[in-house]
Amino acid sequence: MRSPRGYDHIAGQNTNRVEALSDGVFAVALTLLVLDIKVPISDTIHSDRDLFVHFTRVLPKLLTYFMSFMTLGIFWMGHSTQFRYIERSNRNLSWITLFFLMVVSLLPFTTAFLSEHIHYRFSVVMYWFNILLCGLALLLHWNYACSNNFVQISTHERKEITDAMNRRIIVAQILYAFGAALCFFNTYVSIGFIILVQLNYALSLVTRRFRM
Amino acid sequence: MRSPRGYDHIAGQNTNRVEALSDGVFAVALTLLVLDIKVPISDTIHSDRDLFVHFTRVLPKLLTYFMSFMTLGIFWMGHSTQFRYIERSNRNLSWITLFFLMVVSLLPFTTAFLSEHIHYRFSVVMYWFNILLCGLALLLHWNYACSNNFVQISTHERKEITDAMNRRIIVAQILYAFGAALCFFNTYVSIGFIILVQLNYALSLVTRRFRM
Amino acid sequence: MRSPRGYDHIAGQNTNRVEALSDGVFAVALTLLVLDIKVPISDTIHSDRDLFVHFTRVLPKLLTYFMSFMTLGIFWMGHSTQFRYIERSNRNLSWITLFFLMVVSLLPFTTAFLSEHIHYRFSVVMYWFNILLCGLALLLHWNYACSNNFVQISTHERKEITDAMNRRIIVAQILYAFGAALCFFNTYVSIGFIILVQLNYALSLVTRRFRM
Amino acid sequence: MRSPRGYDHIAGQNTNRVEALSDGVFAVALTLLVLDIKVPISDTIHSDRDLFVHFTRVLPKLLTYFMSFMTLGIFWMGHSTQFRYIERSNRNLSWITLFFLMVVSLLPFTTAFLSEHIHYRFSVVMYWFNILLCGLALLLHWNYACSNNFVQISTHERKEITDAMNRRIIVAQILYAFGAALCFFNTYVSIGFIILVQLNYALSLVTRRFRM
Repeated sequence: MRSPRGYDHIAGQNTNRVEALSDGVFAVALTLLVLDIKVPISDTIHSDRDLFVHFTRVLPKLLTYFMSFMTLGIFWMGHSTQFRYIERSNRNLSWITLFFLMVVSLLPFTTAFLSEHIHYRFSVVMYWFNILLCGLALLLHWNYACSNNFVQISTHERKEITDAMNRRIIVAQILYAFGAALCFFNTYVSIGFIILVQLNYALSLVTRRFRM
Repeated sequence: MRSPRGYDHIAGQNTNRVEALSDGVFAVALTLLVLDIKVPISDTIHSDRDLFVHFTRVLPKLLTYFMSFMTLGIFWMGHSTQFRYIERSNRNLSWITLFFLMVVSLLPFTTAFLSEHIHYRFSVVMYWFNILLCGLALLLHWNYACSNNFVQISTHERKEITDAMNRRIIVAQILYAFGAALCFFNTYVSIGFIILVQLNYALSLVTRRFRM
Repeated sequence: MRSPRGYDHIAGQNTNRVEALSDGVFAVALTLLVLDIKVPISDTIHSDRDLFVHFTRVLPKLLTYFMSFMTLGIFWMGHSTQFRYIERSNRNLSWITLFFLMVVSLLPFTTAFLSEHIHYRFSVVMYWFNILLCGLALLLHWNYACSNNFVQISTHERKEITDAMNRRIIVAQILYAFGAALCFFNTYVSIGFIILVQLNYALSLVTRRFRM
Repeated sequence: MRSPRGYDHIAGQNTNRVEALSDGVFAVALTLLVLDIKVPISDTIHSDRDLFVHFTRVLPKLLTYFMSFMTLGIFWMGHSTQFRYIERSNRNLSWITLFFLMVVSLLPFTTAFLSEHIHYRFSVVMYWFNILLCGLALLLHWNYACSNNFVQISTHERKEITDAMNRRIIVAQILYAFGAALCFFNTYVSIGFIILVQLNYALSLVTRRFRM
């Protein structure tokens, strides 16, 4: 383990395990979101029309499902993009990923909290706070990996890529914070704005500078 | 990252992560289906005969469990078959997979919705709509990958394989749409027809032309 | 894809995906078992002694949790042992795995069914029937793989290994059937016998002939 | 399979499967923890202030969520660190991992048990007992692997590393036992001490001797 060959081998293996755990946690979190959408059951359902009416009440839950799937998708993409460059790891970096996964795993809760209390600003603020923690963990992950030389990028490219990585996360977080602040106007406007920001990142409509 | 060697390496890694996330989401969705089958609990159960009677009421849930396991199995097979040929990826293709997984993850909900309201046409239509979205996402995934040269097939085979891929999805979707339309006759006939279509694809009874 | 090199490559990739999906389904099924153990909540809990009394009522659930974890562990081991030898695959073999996973995923339900109605023979029979279906799927999987030359074993060893594989599954199933039949005497005797059979396989106390 | 080449190949493949299953079980267990945090629903919520008050009642659940995420993270790290050195495996070692995963999967239950009855010593003792079983399984796993020569370490380093591994687990378990014993004073002091021990291991504040 002390020899350079052994160290690289061990570190590489470790990166695989961290990536496997991350994919697993994201897969479960993405799929658990659907458990928040409860099937409408009522004694007042006697026809297709009744069922349709009850279904329409589920639509806000589908909206938050869509938003949280996007949120998780964006953070999964961000985390796995970092691992395109990160070739080695140590236990501190693994623990940063674990803390990242800890706040990622909270999202099904904050989503259910929001969908249940969608008219209250406090639940929007909680949801935004969860996104903020995910962003901070991601920012910490990249900069720790860079400052410990775990990334496989030539020196003259590293500054450029790190700047792009950091700028992307910070700009996104500013947009999310602005979106969350809109809840003081109306919570649906807030959610709508956040979804627009997410669609922009997913479809890369406006910001095409750095492919993440 | 700009060199061809590096690019291939990074892109390949990315395909692995997308495949790992997909396997994870499918594994969770497949296993969550069972949560819809509730154990009968009642104060009226006093004998094995009572328990058997209560168990028979669970049978419709087992039917929809079977159908949805088939549905998820078919789409998992379709998606992983595409990745036999897809050697490279970009973030757009990953996002198409994420949208695919988003509608795949909804299936435990639409299944529970159907099993709970199995006599209503609206729930059959909702279930069919979910299958339609999965099919459309799969169709988009393949054609985007092809038009961006991410597939590893010789030019003269590509048209043939793409035609077969597209034909298979479109024919299946037409059969599903026909099956769903049968709900205006009887919802159980509708479900029975869809299961027959699925068994045909799973056991490749009729269509053996393209192995998917 | 028609060239031998391409075919091997594709088939190998496919085996990986099937194995990844299987590991995922087993991981989720193993972990979902715990959801059947409900935390005792009662207004009558006012001291550590009360809490202990309520906890003792959870013990039968811990017993079935233990049994089902063993069951899933044994079948996971059996399935992954087969893949030590299976080097190639086709869609039929993948569908056999999917049917195997379908009955494996039912185990959290039959476990909850048994733990809830632990005094009734019908629930023991249901649980046994689930084990039987898992065993049959495993038997079919191996023999289909062998008869299609997907296994990587020299010809003179193949008969020996196949005999051992089949004998192991059939002997185990006979023991499970005997254990299930004991429920006509007493359901706890039945469960106890099945756990003893499982411990024997897990710890390989008696049968050490073929390492599975 | 009898030839040395074949044996190594098969054993290596097996290690991958065990690692994949472990990552899956940990990923699901980590994500299931959030299901214990129920969204407050009440007819008495009429304002953001009401919602905030109801949210504060969820805070103890967030505390146990945090503690259990740390617990699972530490044991995942311990298990995967062992596999940096373990190059081969047999079915006994796989079964030790399965028993390890069995007690790991219980953690969402003992966590919910603790968070629901956070003022009772019995629930702290149960939680500690779960940690103890995880530690014992990990200890058994490493020493079985070593005594069967499955580890890839030079002989003169093996004693040193094994001593460090064992010392680390035993010291941690003594600290956890002391923390659990504090519940006879106050359960929150107990939980606080356990979290401090965990933070120490995660952030490697005090013990930096062996990187795990």
